[in-house]
Amino acid sequence: MNNVNATWVAVDWGTTNIRIWAIDSSDNVIAYSESDEGMKDLQQNEFEPVLLNLIGNWLDGDRVTPVIACGMVGARQGWLETPYQKAPCVPINIKKLTVVSTTDARIQVNVIPGIKQHYPADIMRGEETQIAGFLKVNPEFDGIVCLPGTHIKWAKVSKYKVEKFTTFMTGELFDVISVNTLLSHSIGDNGWHQSSFEKGIMNGFKNPSLIAAETFSLRAESILNGVDSKNTRSKLSGLLIGIELHATKNYWQGNKVIIIGSEVLIKHYSKALQLVGGESDSFNAEVATLAGLRYAYNELHTNYKTND
Amino acid sequence: MNNVNATWVAVDWGTTNIRIWAIDSSDNVIAYSESDEGMKDLQQNEFEPVLLNLIGNWLDGDRVTPVIACGMVGARQGWLETPYQKAPCVPINIKKLTVVSTTDARIQVNVIPGIKQHYPADIMRGEETQIAGFLKVNPEFDGIVCLPGTHIKWAKVSKYKVEKFTTFMTGELFDVISVNTLLSHSIGDNGWHQSSFEKGIMNGFKNPSLIAAETFSLRAESILNGVDSKNTRSKLSGLLIGIELHATKNYWQGNKVIIIGSEVLIKHYSKALQLVGGESDSFNAEVATLAGLRYAYNELHTNYKTND
Repeated sequence: MNNVNATWVAVDWGTTNIRIWAIDSSDNVIAYSESDEGMKDLQQNEFEPVLLNLIGNWLDGDRVTPVIACGMVGARQGWLETPYQKAPCVPINIKKLTVVSTTDARIQVNVIPGIKQHYPADIMRGEETQIAGFLKVNPEFDGIVCLPGTHIKWAKVSKYKVEKFTTFMTGELFDVISVNTLLSHSIGDNGWHQSSFEKGIMNGFKNPSLIAAETFSLRAESILNGVDSKNTRSKLSGLLIGIELHATKNYWQGNKVIIIGSEVLIKHYSKALQLVGGESDSFNAEVATLAGLRYAYNELHTNYKTND
Repeated sequence: MNNVNATWVAVDWGTTNIRIWAIDSSDNVIAYSESDEGMKDLQQNEFEPVLLNLIGNWLDGDRVTPVIACGMVGARQGWLETPYQKAPCVPINIKKLTVVSTTDARIQVNVIPGIKQHYPADIMRGEETQIAGFLKVNPEFDGIVCLPGTHIKWAKVSKYKVEKFTTFMTGELFDVISVNTLLSHSIGDNGWHQSSFEKGIMNGFKNPSLIAAETFSLRAESILNGVDSKNTRSKLSGLLIGIELHATKNYWQGNKVIIIGSEVLIKHYSKALQLVGGESDSFNAEVATLAGLRYAYNELHTNYKTND
């Protein structure tokens, strides 16, 4: 029955979903699973059953399978609160991983801590693992990384450390303005109009303080001029990203930014940066996450044990 | 049974509520009624029954009682779509009022149209009546009015006309960021902390493009430093108003702004303006609404008929 023989299991457990990879002894991904059982919908005692339900078939009853997890699973409302590291710091400090005790003895779960910054106050959980994964592939990197998503992180990385970072809730603002304001009557769930997106970027970048007027005007344009929902959606997205790029000049001006994201977010952010005079390269977010989790596994179960 | 003998009825029917005043032949308010049966919750055929339920006791069966209404009741999703006037225009043009036909012959309903502007695209419904009411009391006024609320209007008024205006959905942004984002875990329904509000104003005014970072940082401050929900709420409010004041410099710099609003919004906006170097006077919003509706009634049922 069990044809997946996982040497270890990599877990990215976020606010709204969980993604899991089974890794074999040759370092290959041999199985993948995911579900929408994110941190926000789970009580503390539900994390272990959810995990076992997804990976039970991958486990060998005769030995303990290491599980390395990152993300909001380590938040106060998660499985077990994992204390933040404090920036500046290496993205993953293997001595700071938190062991989560489980009732099932077939797994040993380690959670990677997030990073906090006191001034300006900021936090990340999950992105530190992507940064560590990117650095595993690019160990000499010194510069700026941008990780677009619901809560976009901009970080300065130097000498293998996260020096400082800033989170923008641009993605979440887009969601709530689209879904929960009067603009919901003028915006659809999908569709894209590139030139509206680009116009939005320039409007936001040039006049960021007009955010509350530009958003209302999108509604008025739809009422007065019948502007379609695709255009409105794309322009709103551009507007919010343009405002963010105005605020992040200190990060990207004079630096080639590494955008660590999904294909579509890389496309949008690299275009936006280009429009305002910036430069970027890209790195796939899933590759980064897996490389970061793999780094933690290797340090914990190979190098670290050997050095101990 | 009927001890209210209304000569006419004034109605302010907005998106989320309806407020109604019975006016006697000496121009006095003799009764008041309100409910949360706003435009957004009503089908077209429900407006008349809702109105009659609230004012039925005030009506004299032997004659027709004029009802003058303003607000979103005249929107496309309202009782009957009332075409916008186009700015620049007088706030209320008595010849543009729309008669709504009713099945009950005891009332004759007139709705005051809103105002539209094509570039930048913008619309108002209800605020034109407040501006008309303010101008009734201050006929020589030439300058800037600000009407704070869910959708704040800034307008330039000159020679009895609304020359141009800009709507900021600052109030709605405050609502959705407080209720629908991760900040909801750090913000209560009420409570106020004046110095946090003022700090937020200056942050927003100085660095408006940081909106998505400042909002996330409020959440981080609550997690890392246990900042209480009152401070977070007040700082968010200040932040968004500060951003709006950055965008409205062209309106308020060098002009004493008339803030037409509720007591609490007048207090917040006048303080915010003062902090960034502006000046303001205030005018009560309810007084303005009633004066505007009264102006329309008088024009329609006294002056206009006489001149016709």
